[in-house]
Amino acid sequence: MAASAFSLSQSLLSRSNQCNSSIGTNLDGASFVSSTRPSFSSRTCTRRWSVKSSRSAVKAAAVKIPEETDETLVEKSVNTIRFLAIDAVEKANSGHPGLPMGCAPIGHVLYDEVMRYNPKNPYWFNRDRFVLSAGHGCMLQYALLHLAAFDSVKDEDLKSFRQWRSKTPGHPENFETPGVEVTTGPLGQGIANAVGLALAEKHLAARYNKPDIEIVDHYTYVILGDGCQMEGVTNEACSLAGHWGLGKLIAFYDDNHISIDGNTEIAFTETVEARYEALGWHVIWVKNGNTGYDDIRAAIKEAKAVKDKPTLIKVTTTIGYGSPNKANSHSVHGSALGAKEVDATRKNLWWQHDPFHVPADVRKHWNRHVPQGAALEAEWNAKFMEYEKKYREAAAELRSLITGELPDRWDKTLPSYTSESPADATRNLSQQCLNSLVKVLPGFLGGSADLASSNMTLLKMFGNLGKDTPEERNLRFGVREHGMGAICTGIALHSPGLIPYCATFFVFTDYMRAAIRLAALSEARVIYVMTHDSIGLGEDGPTHQPIEHLASFRAMPNVLMLRPADGNETAGAYKVAILNKKRPSILALSRQKLPHLPGTSIDLVARGGYIISDNSSSNKPDVILIGTGSELEIAAKAGDELRKEGKSVRVVSLVSWELFNEQCDAYKESVLPAGVAGRVSIEAGSTFGWGKIVGPKGKAIGIDQFGVSAPAGRIYKELGLTVEAVVQAAKALC
Amino acid sequence: MAASAFSLSQSLLSRSNQCNSSIGTNLDGASFVSSTRPSFSSRTCTRRWSVKSSRSAVKAAAVKIPEETDETLVEKSVNTIRFLAIDAVEKANSGHPGLPMGCAPIGHVLYDEVMRYNPKNPYWFNRDRFVLSAGHGCMLQYALLHLAAFDSVKDEDLKSFRQWRSKTPGHPENFETPGVEVTTGPLGQGIANAVGLALAEKHLAARYNKPDIEIVDHYTYVILGDGCQMEGVTNEACSLAGHWGLGKLIAFYDDNHISIDGNTEIAFTETVEARYEALGWHVIWVKNGNTGYDDIRAAIKEAKAVKDKPTLIKVTTTIGYGSPNKANSHSVHGSALGAKEVDATRKNLWWQHDPFHVPADVRKHWNRHVPQGAALEAEWNAKFMEYEKKYREAAAELRSLITGELPDRWDKTLPSYTSESPADATRNLSQQCLNSLVKVLPGFLGGSADLASSNMTLLKMFGNLGKDTPEERNLRFGVREHGMGAICTGIALHSPGLIPYCATFFVFTDYMRAAIRLAALSEARVIYVMTHDSIGLGEDGPTHQPIEHLASFRAMPNVLMLRPADGNETAGAYKVAILNKKRPSILALSRQKLPHLPGTSIDLVARGGYIISDNSSSNKPDVILIGTGSELEIAAKAGDELRKEGKSVRVVSLVSWELFNEQCDAYKESVLPAGVAGRVSIEAGSTFGWGKIVGPKGKAIGIDQFGVSAPAGRIYKELGLTVEAVVQAAKALC
Repeated sequence: MAASAFSLSQSLLSRSNQCNSSIGTNLDGASFVSSTRPSFSSRTCTRRWSVKSSRSAVKAAAVKIPEETDETLVEKSVNTIRFLAIDAVEKANSGHPGLPMGCAPIGHVLYDEVMRYNPKNPYWFNRDRFVLSAGHGCMLQYALLHLAAFDSVKDEDLKSFRQWRSKTPGHPENFETPGVEVTTGPLGQGIANAVGLALAEKHLAARYNKPDIEIVDHYTYVILGDGCQMEGVTNEACSLAGHWGLGKLIAFYDDNHISIDGNTEIAFTETVEARYEALGWHVIWVKNGNTGYDDIRAAIKEAKAVKDKPTLIKVTTTIGYGSPNKANSHSVHGSALGAKEVDATRKNLWWQHDPFHVPADVRKHWNRHVPQGAALEAEWNAKFMEYEKKYREAAAELRSLITGELPDRWDKTLPSYTSESPADATRNLSQQCLNSLVKVLPGFLGGSADLASSNMTLLKMFGNLGKDTPEERNLRFGVREHGMGAICTGIALHSPGLIPYCATFFVFTDYMRAAIRLAALSEARVIYVMTHDSIGLGEDGPTHQPIEHLASFRAMPNVLMLRPADGNETAGAYKVAILNKKRPSILALSRQKLPHLPGTSIDLVARGGYIISDNSSSNKPDVILIGTGSELEIAAKAGDELRKEGKSVRVVSLVSWELFNEQCDAYKESVLPAGVAGRVSIEAGSTFGWGKIVGPKGKAIGIDQFGVSAPAGRIYKELGLTVEAVVQAAKALC
Repeated sequence: MAASAFSLSQSLLSRSNQCNSSIGTNLDGASFVSSTRPSFSSRTCTRRWSVKSSRSAVKAAAVKIPEETDETLVEKSVNTIRFLAIDAVEKANSGHPGLPMGCAPIGHVLYDEVMRYNPKNPYWFNRDRFVLSAGHGCMLQYALLHLAAFDSVKDEDLKSFRQWRSKTPGHPENFETPGVEVTTGPLGQGIANAVGLALAEKHLAARYNKPDIEIVDHYTYVILGDGCQMEGVTNEACSLAGHWGLGKLIAFYDDNHISIDGNTEIAFTETVEARYEALGWHVIWVKNGNTGYDDIRAAIKEAKAVKDKPTLIKVTTTIGYGSPNKANSHSVHGSALGAKEVDATRKNLWWQHDPFHVPADVRKHWNRHVPQGAALEAEWNAKFMEYEKKYREAAAELRSLITGELPDRWDKTLPSYTSESPADATRNLSQQCLNSLVKVLPGFLGGSADLASSNMTLLKMFGNLGKDTPEERNLRFGVREHGMGAICTGIALHSPGLIPYCATFFVFTDYMRAAIRLAALSEARVIYVMTHDSIGLGEDGPTHQPIEHLASFRAMPNVLMLRPADGNETAGAYKVAILNKKRPSILALSRQKLPHLPGTSIDLVARGGYIISDNSSSNKPDVILIGTGSELEIAAKAGDELRKEGKSVRVVSLVSWELFNEQCDAYKESVLPAGVAGRVSIEAGSTFGWGKIVGPKGKAIGIDQFGVSAPAGRIYKELGLTVEAVVQAAKALC
């Protein structure tokens, strides 16, 4: 049975796979594709564009079009890219023309000469990945996807740039535009995602490549700008890229000296190259990024030859290249050129075409990527068939990583508990889940930001993933929470079957919040294992004690905030996290021991909220006590007390508000009947948001101040998170 | 009139100033204090401890105590520090002994030989600042404060380490322990705060020093560890420190090769020194930090000689130095040594004393800091008197920065508006406030993370604060939101009269959330100018559109979240932000134009919520419409519509939930009477939290999904944030 392109195309990643009507109609083994991977030299250097590379920065006003030769076609293609960007921004009267105009040469070389992809199947597994970390320059990428004949960016899409529900939003969005790998815009995220993509490649290559068949083998290319370079998350991720020796990560630093506030000199005078060398990168400088095509090509060749280090290619460009009055200034960064300057730029670059026009020879030249891409995929499919014959088990596993299909009965591996099981911290129970899951889920891997022994996240069967041990599955992120988060998004978006988890103390989600939000927006299934989830961590004090964090994530779209109370709920939380393929999950876990409560359930976690005990009838308890995580025990004990005094009491676990809100009204009414106003909630965190749940007559017990350094028991008592407080509040209500 | 120590002691900073009973009782000009600042050489090198410095790492098991000489006293002092840390952690059975044991020599040299401070007045303005960025090692700082006779850390405080409401919490907290400058623990924050402290010194020195009187002149010292070095915020802040040439910032990098997960080799293999050189720092390596006192002293001398660059002194130490079985391992990082190992360490270091014992000669040696510190302050006070005579105006201004006193009628400078004033974006109205305030508030300074022209934060009267223009007041942070936030906390905590503001797009608070939280915890008055506060920013799309951010900050303790609706409310928000000296404020401001609404008020912003229009009587409107920021206009228009149809309608601006919650019940009832269940809210953000305000029968109109890239008007319409929607919801309720 052939491995069809469709089944291996990661189509599950796409909201829009119905658009890919041509998927599966590949050419089979067209003769121009050799059976081995074309080397860089055979693919680019045989063409030897004779454009002369000048080592000095080219002034915008002095652009000359060379004679009609091959090199003219390159220039023409590059100018097509520039003007598609100019025209789209102009039509939208909004957007960022400067970067596409400056980086068009890099974009052209990458998409036309270097990268291996199949435009008619953007999800082909073994494609080279491209990330525009400077996401505001997205018209560069849309122009390239358009020229390369991706169905996602057709002519009408360019013309609806930045309009309601278009395929060409104001920043690249992976969930809107097939061909866009990750969602960028917030600076530094893209390069960090790219580190994750490159790490995923290195990891999978180490696990699945065989001496005779290299089945995983692609590059990850990035363009990042001065803004990305200033961001701390970039330094974190790039330090790890150097540490891991990600030789197939090639990043172009668009060194144009301009950021929104003007010349970068006003805030950015460090020596970027030296910093990257310190981080363990290979660094190359292309001094003329405006017309130095051969230099760009040579740099890529050199970068590929360096196999044990990632490469930063600093490319000095002119922002807004070609605009006679705005190039090399911040005024071209983030707004339309204006009709007059567009005209002047057209004249300056000898561009006589109407807006959005793609010259026929340029179109023809780029169209070859359709058969070429199909052939590349077909070639790889053939290779996969051979692989499947020789390495049946490995092939089946790899296939599951590519499609995202979960093994049958995978969830049966999750541990379950009874109320007699010994009390334990949910962070420890989480470790049991992690170590069970990794046995059945080949794409499960992850680690902590230097807190593995506190977060309890080590996978005991595996060693540390390192430069020379890329096949291992324990990731050691160091104290780099933000980089960790963004890297995991990259891993998750590399292949549907990869399930990264990452860990730190819950309070330090503050460091990685931007990455978590982008994972949510990007529909990336990352599992955040967040331990020490309350004042229950005790003596480390208020800098380490989360208060507002549960509320802050409950308010964030498309992320599941789960706070399991014991072993069964922890297992249930993992089950939910893995089944929710299009959103990340945050698990808030305790440092302190918790009992396994009667009535908790693995499966009911998926309901978000459910009854763990009740002695009422007719859905009319005197009072409903609601808890989450470590405070569910307090609610349960208070329930016992109140029942002794003759009350009818329901105790509810509200393990995930988002999931509960998604249930049908009848179910919600069965758990929290509108007619019961006597409601008391308890949670060791902000009461913000609980008002809606307990209602105007109910009482929310929580913490609306910072915590305190002291033993945990003392803090709970002093801050009033006690059984007595719940009992007292309940009695006042019924 | 003499400048009393009290009035210049920044006592407003302290929660605990009633403890400083000895403030104002300084010795006057004791003879051993020279009239000029003691140079490093006269203060340390004349003593010339003859401890031999070994360039190889000292093995823990082979520690020998030298003969009784001066050097013995240093060793004894250093071991006193070590054992105070060991004993306190042991008694608490919780804490981090490893760093204090390894860094005791640095700590000793700094606090006993180098730093200039007055232990009886921790708020003396011209003191050297010390920041323990590796805050978990706080017992180092507590031991030093104790030896130096700070009243904040007495014997009983050491014995109540990490206990309820002690002065010695689990991480250093400026609001609990006088002598602690900033609150640290979350890694990287301290070094970034220190950049702010050093920047404040350089700025004030440039503004107030005169050719004949150097009235501002102190160093900022930091200890940071491997963990801090990995954090991105550290790189951001240190890049700026290099850019600004902060020559009086001296950071000790505790290079002990151990982090929680073990040897740093598993995640951290970059070349830190080379990175700092790339960032523009001077770098020194002290290879034997365990006993190389002279090397430490020489490094500090060298660092002070480099005046145009900050210095990183990499000090190679042994974590847990002295513990025969746990030194140089992660097991000594974060838990008590245990009785057996404490005994072994006592033997190994020849320490025969009981727990918490300070040998008499060590005590005597350190006690000299009491008169010496008093003399330093008295000397400075005398200098200030002279300064005041010669430079009356500058002295008055500087005095106000030191005390935090605001000028009379400062708030009268704020602009006010009528409903006839031209519509404008609140970001522009904010700029009017900033430029008005800077004229009357000498401590007002700030800037943006490379979005000055979008955030509208430029101070037109001033230039850019740069390496050679430190007197200017426009800060250019580059694209470094996290570093920006933490630096501003440092500026705010330097002097009570400094009022830093910083700016980016509201959504990018995600990048700096950890810094904002620490500002809130630290009671630092930072003003966050956060523009582009909703989907109203339009085409940039969901990566740039805040949704959950308002809710997420409303849930955070001790921070004011303000969302002004127009000019008067923007001015009112600034007034509130400046008057709230013990908490930071976040201003969410619009990109789009907004009308000036009838009924808004500068002064009523302080109430958090108030009525802008009402045609009801007896506090019983048919319906209450509640809005914030840009949506207050929609609520007001809907009110007009409904009134036309005969309804009695109240329109309420809920500009700050925190402030409204702090009002008395009667006021709250007068705005949102319990008896009125017909309530509709509208806000272009998550409805999370609104349930409590609109009540079970009310309706909260908002956005509980990510935004979309499109023109703003289209998004408002498509997502249902319209006058019609409010009218419809209101009609359904009344």
